[in-house]
Amino acid sequence: MNRRLKVGIIGAGRIGRLHAEHLAFRIPDAEVVAIADPFVENARRCAGRCGIPKVFEDYHDILNDPKIDAVIVCSPTDTHAKITIESAERGKHVFCEKPISHDLKEIDDVLNAVEKSGIKFQVGFNRRFDSNFRRIKKAVESGEIGDPYIIHVISRDPEPPSIDYVKSSGGIFLDMTIHDFDMVRYIIGDEVEEVYVVAGVMVDERIGEVGDLDTAIITLRFRNGVMGTIDNCRKAVYGYDQRVEVFGSKGVISAQNNYPNNTVRGDETGFHRDPPLRFFMERYIESYVEEMKEFVNAVLNDGQVPVGGIDGKIPVVMGMAARKSYDENRPVKLSEICSI
Amino acid sequence: MNRRLKVGIIGAGRIGRLHAEHLAFRIPDAEVVAIADPFVENARRCAGRCGIPKVFEDYHDILNDPKIDAVIVCSPTDTHAKITIESAERGKHVFCEKPISHDLKEIDDVLNAVEKSGIKFQVGFNRRFDSNFRRIKKAVESGEIGDPYIIHVISRDPEPPSIDYVKSSGGIFLDMTIHDFDMVRYIIGDEVEEVYVVAGVMVDERIGEVGDLDTAIITLRFRNGVMGTIDNCRKAVYGYDQRVEVFGSKGVISAQNNYPNNTVRGDETGFHRDPPLRFFMERYIESYVEEMKEFVNAVLNDGQVPVGGIDGKIPVVMGMAARKSYDENRPVKLSEICSI
Amino acid sequence: MNRRLKVGIIGAGRIGRLHAEHLAFRIPDAEVVAIADPFVENARRCAGRCGIPKVFEDYHDILNDPKIDAVIVCSPTDTHAKITIESAERGKHVFCEKPISHDLKEIDDVLNAVEKSGIKFQVGFNRRFDSNFRRIKKAVESGEIGDPYIIHVISRDPEPPSIDYVKSSGGIFLDMTIHDFDMVRYIIGDEVEEVYVVAGVMVDERIGEVGDLDTAIITLRFRNGVMGTIDNCRKAVYGYDQRVEVFGSKGVISAQNNYPNNTVRGDETGFHRDPPLRFFMERYIESYVEEMKEFVNAVLNDGQVPVGGIDGKIPVVMGMAARKSYDENRPVKLSEICSI
Amino acid sequence: MNRRLKVGIIGAGRIGRLHAEHLAFRIPDAEVVAIADPFVENARRCAGRCGIPKVFEDYHDILNDPKIDAVIVCSPTDTHAKITIESAERGKHVFCEKPISHDLKEIDDVLNAVEKSGIKFQVGFNRRFDSNFRRIKKAVESGEIGDPYIIHVISRDPEPPSIDYVKSSGGIFLDMTIHDFDMVRYIIGDEVEEVYVVAGVMVDERIGEVGDLDTAIITLRFRNGVMGTIDNCRKAVYGYDQRVEVFGSKGVISAQNNYPNNTVRGDETGFHRDPPLRFFMERYIESYVEEMKEFVNAVLNDGQVPVGGIDGKIPVVMGMAARKSYDENRPVKLSEICSI
Repeated sequence: MNRRLKVGIIGAGRIGRLHAEHLAFRIPDAEVVAIADPFVENARRCAGRCGIPKVFEDYHDILNDPKIDAVIVCSPTDTHAKITIESAERGKHVFCEKPISHDLKEIDDVLNAVEKSGIKFQVGFNRRFDSNFRRIKKAVESGEIGDPYIIHVISRDPEPPSIDYVKSSGGIFLDMTIHDFDMVRYIIGDEVEEVYVVAGVMVDERIGEVGDLDTAIITLRFRNGVMGTIDNCRKAVYGYDQRVEVFGSKGVISAQNNYPNNTVRGDETGFHRDPPLRFFMERYIESYVEEMKEFVNAVLNDGQVPVGGIDGKIPVVMGMAARKSYDENRPVKLSEICSI
Repeated sequence: MNRRLKVGIIGAGRIGRLHAEHLAFRIPDAEVVAIADPFVENARRCAGRCGIPKVFEDYHDILNDPKIDAVIVCSPTDTHAKITIESAERGKHVFCEKPISHDLKEIDDVLNAVEKSGIKFQVGFNRRFDSNFRRIKKAVESGEIGDPYIIHVISRDPEPPSIDYVKSSGGIFLDMTIHDFDMVRYIIGDEVEEVYVVAGVMVDERIGEVGDLDTAIITLRFRNGVMGTIDNCRKAVYGYDQRVEVFGSKGVISAQNNYPNNTVRGDETGFHRDPPLRFFMERYIESYVEEMKEFVNAVLNDGQVPVGGIDGKIPVVMGMAARKSYDENRPVKLSEICSI
Repeated sequence: MNRRLKVGIIGAGRIGRLHAEHLAFRIPDAEVVAIADPFVENARRCAGRCGIPKVFEDYHDILNDPKIDAVIVCSPTDTHAKITIESAERGKHVFCEKPISHDLKEIDDVLNAVEKSGIKFQVGFNRRFDSNFRRIKKAVESGEIGDPYIIHVISRDPEPPSIDYVKSSGGIFLDMTIHDFDMVRYIIGDEVEEVYVVAGVMVDERIGEVGDLDTAIITLRFRNGVMGTIDNCRKAVYGYDQRVEVFGSKGVISAQNNYPNNTVRGDETGFHRDPPLRFFMERYIESYVEEMKEFVNAVLNDGQVPVGGIDGKIPVVMGMAARKSYDENRPVKLSEICSI
Repeated sequence: MNRRLKVGIIGAGRIGRLHAEHLAFRIPDAEVVAIADPFVENARRCAGRCGIPKVFEDYHDILNDPKIDAVIVCSPTDTHAKITIESAERGKHVFCEKPISHDLKEIDDVLNAVEKSGIKFQVGFNRRFDSNFRRIKKAVESGEIGDPYIIHVISRDPEPPSIDYVKSSGGIFLDMTIHDFDMVRYIIGDEVEEVYVVAGVMVDERIGEVGDLDTAIITLRFRNGVMGTIDNCRKAVYGYDQRVEVFGSKGVISAQNNYPNNTVRGDETGFHRDPPLRFFMERYIESYVEEMKEFVNAVLNDGQVPVGGIDGKIPVVMGMAARKSYDENRPVKLSEICSI
């Protein structure tokens, strides 16, 4: 591996800038050679900060650059599929932010294009790379907790997004729960067969007014008999709450939250610790670095990407089933949405 | 309150002996004057240990003793209703172990008899008196965590009971979850409208062979919009697991398990603490004392009992709805079982 | 063991009443037949509450009662030695609150009288019976943490006592640290050879004005090479702070504080738990019951008492060495105080 | 700040390479233009990895390069003073690894040279930049815990260094405790007046054979009356143990260890978590980055360095006083070593 991967970044929004910084400063094996964004000023600022030589308005300039090995797709969700397919056609490896699309047909088109082209294609489910959840995965895989019986995921945001964001988010299940759907598949290593949802609008009435929900419990039944729940809320005043527990025949393993420091303070009213890391970029900073390192590594060494195309599709199916379950107040099988 | 409550205990099994010891040694305001059990030797041994003057084979000897103010019903479940009704007819106050009955008609008969007689009638849901769950109740009531959104109960036993016990237990929902049904009603202070169950036999096939389940997740929807889950398993190798969490608009409160000591030990493999209290009688010893103190106090001072007849009925209805939900794999409203 | 130990209690102050309640309600093998106190009204109230038949003003009435097997000495410290010696002369077993005396000559007189008479003599170092510290003792004894290198004790009170109490307390080292001196001997199972003290008056100037200290760190060197520290303060606003840590060749074990409940609450400012148990009688209630059970048991079964006369003497020697070290700002050997 | 600081690194050992990576990949405002090491191969490998253009055998080539603004001194301890003085004479700012020297005369020479030249001079006490200890510092400074009374530092290494290292280390107090001496000064914000040491050889006899100690408790008395202890050991089997507690008039604050993940696993033997971060480079990685960022920032913006020359001198004085206290078994005032 005596050469560096040449990368182009498409999209200089929040997540594009995050990947740019990691690729520039934390991942010696990669080199960002170009960044593109229709708001070219954003791309320019990011390029300045990260020492990226080329800045484009049109992402096709990246796709057409023969020196670029791989693209990082951080554009708006509704362009992910199109850009990925175009990249595949030009033989460029793709790291694509989640979700691939909110449309199953489009996702299948992407998966077909990827397969036909033979490129590496990784979907940005970064939480798999978090040290807490990796430790849980290891406990399940290694048999430390025996046969898994039950998985619980608690995943609550510190603040709801703007109503504008909510409107175009695809709904809580495709926007927020999608990460947790990926998490339960990753940890249990099997597919969910059926979901049942109770949900409501508790945090902000305006979220309900645009047809979405802000609080939900999703009950899961896996093909192998494991059961589980996902607890989502758009607002937890005490910060970003990201916990997972797996209970099995030989024990239990639980991930607690991460904190900015490990101090505890006592006073007349009791003992206190500061709130957990509040912002997802702080909380998952290392997992973002790690997923990108593994992508770079998979491309350079012709290895397997850790999160493939099918991993991008199934959580979308789960999100659709969840919404259907809520709408019809009954358990819904994933096979009602599509065959997998 | 310058007199002591004169109490008779019916049933000298495990739980009867527990109450006898507490009444004798921990509750100065009560005096156990008699204990009855068809296995009279059991009653005699308990009487010897606790200094109880009278021992009977037939519990009617207690009911007919005019000096006895109150009876503690610790006989087999299928006799609870009959004995309570007979006690009510004789004007004796009753503390009755849970459940009142597995038959809704019988429960209604008990509730009617109690109402007609005007006796105090308390049902033995001891966990309400546990200091952890009381603290959570207080947080919910006082508004410390704002409006509650979600409640989670984890309630796992260290070991399954014998298959003989399972056969006559009424099933996991009436035998085990019933405590958790009471807990969620107590803490949220509102009624559950609908339940949905996923469940299975994961611990011991023989439990399935007799028609019961050993592992379950019960999803709850309250009338006030609160959602919740109960996680039950008959066997957690790491001990008795009794946790509750309530999440609300202003925060969250979680009860962790209780341990025999608060030491933590570090060695080459990491940091360790001994398993939590394993046996329910150790774990809930103080809550058993406390519920009995409150009963004695309510009778002596003509106060309100903390857990009344309706609190004995509704968890049975919830258990029936849970089984129906499992059998039919759909959410079931409590009103499908009976009107409350 | 088919008979109960007949006990008389001398002193109906706070600690006498505590032992009376435990003997009456928690220890079936004992029977309190008399209680004496010059403030006879105190003794009478306690007798009423605990069902003690005889009440005396003069403790000699207890010593002269041939039916009484054992006395519990809870009178003021300066009478402990005299009463114990008189009890020994009458062949009555003695449980004596700590300290035996502040005068080494008097202590030796007690030890001689006890030896001559052959009575059981237990000193009231109740903390040895606490489940946390017992677990640490077990870890040291069993080799779980290998050879011990270092012991740390943190022992801070929630509130300083009254200045009147301080004046007659014998000073912080004989009044407060004495418990910790006992604890380090108990856990390490060897004797301290030398102590060094830094201390000051930080909490309340009036404590300094009467010649005492309120905050201190005592450094310890054991004969077997183990080192340690004791951290004492008369006032910790967050409650009663009672921690011990032992570090050794194979690991470390630490006891955390005990809390009234195990709930943790999160809000915008972070995560919180209620203060630890604040009052020593709550914190050590079970250890008080336990030490008395073991005393009763040792007498009834002619066993060995768990805390003997020499255990009452050495902590006093350590307290004297500590004060000398503070006064002269140098390490002081226990052998400078007396030979042991 | 539109220019980057041009830095030369002297010494390509473990700590030099660490700083090189941070400056190259984590600190955009700096640019490493050269690295020097007599083992030039080491320097070359590091330069390759970090993209450093120039590699020298002789550090004078760095000092003589007029384009270099600042040097990072990571050479062997006995060269720190000489190189720093030479750098000062050439007007190059210096970040110098701790300790400046083991010779007080040399340290004073450095301090004089720094003062005369007007360069920025920062000493590498990285732990001040750790988020746990910063939080404690903030609690003390802000008055959150009131007036500090007592500080405890526990600082135990996972493994002793090689005997060769021990021989030239300057002894435990100058090599290991020196970090803790810096920590207590930093947190309390006042100077220690007197120290007293108990210590021994418990981990490895060979450490004793070369005249050093491996386990120690250092008792501290500050000028402002605060007391404290430092607990050091060269080997804690459970990993790197780095804790600090400060107790004051309004509360207490304690830093616990940092762990590779926040999961807890339960099985039949209890609850477990993996050992804390074992290696100082993992444990303090962020604090190393942070100290260097602050140095770069101080130079670029002509600000004050956070750890100055006097902060490099006083811990050495404390280490000498500690050794003298051990040798003479008595408390030793820092003023016995030198006036500060």
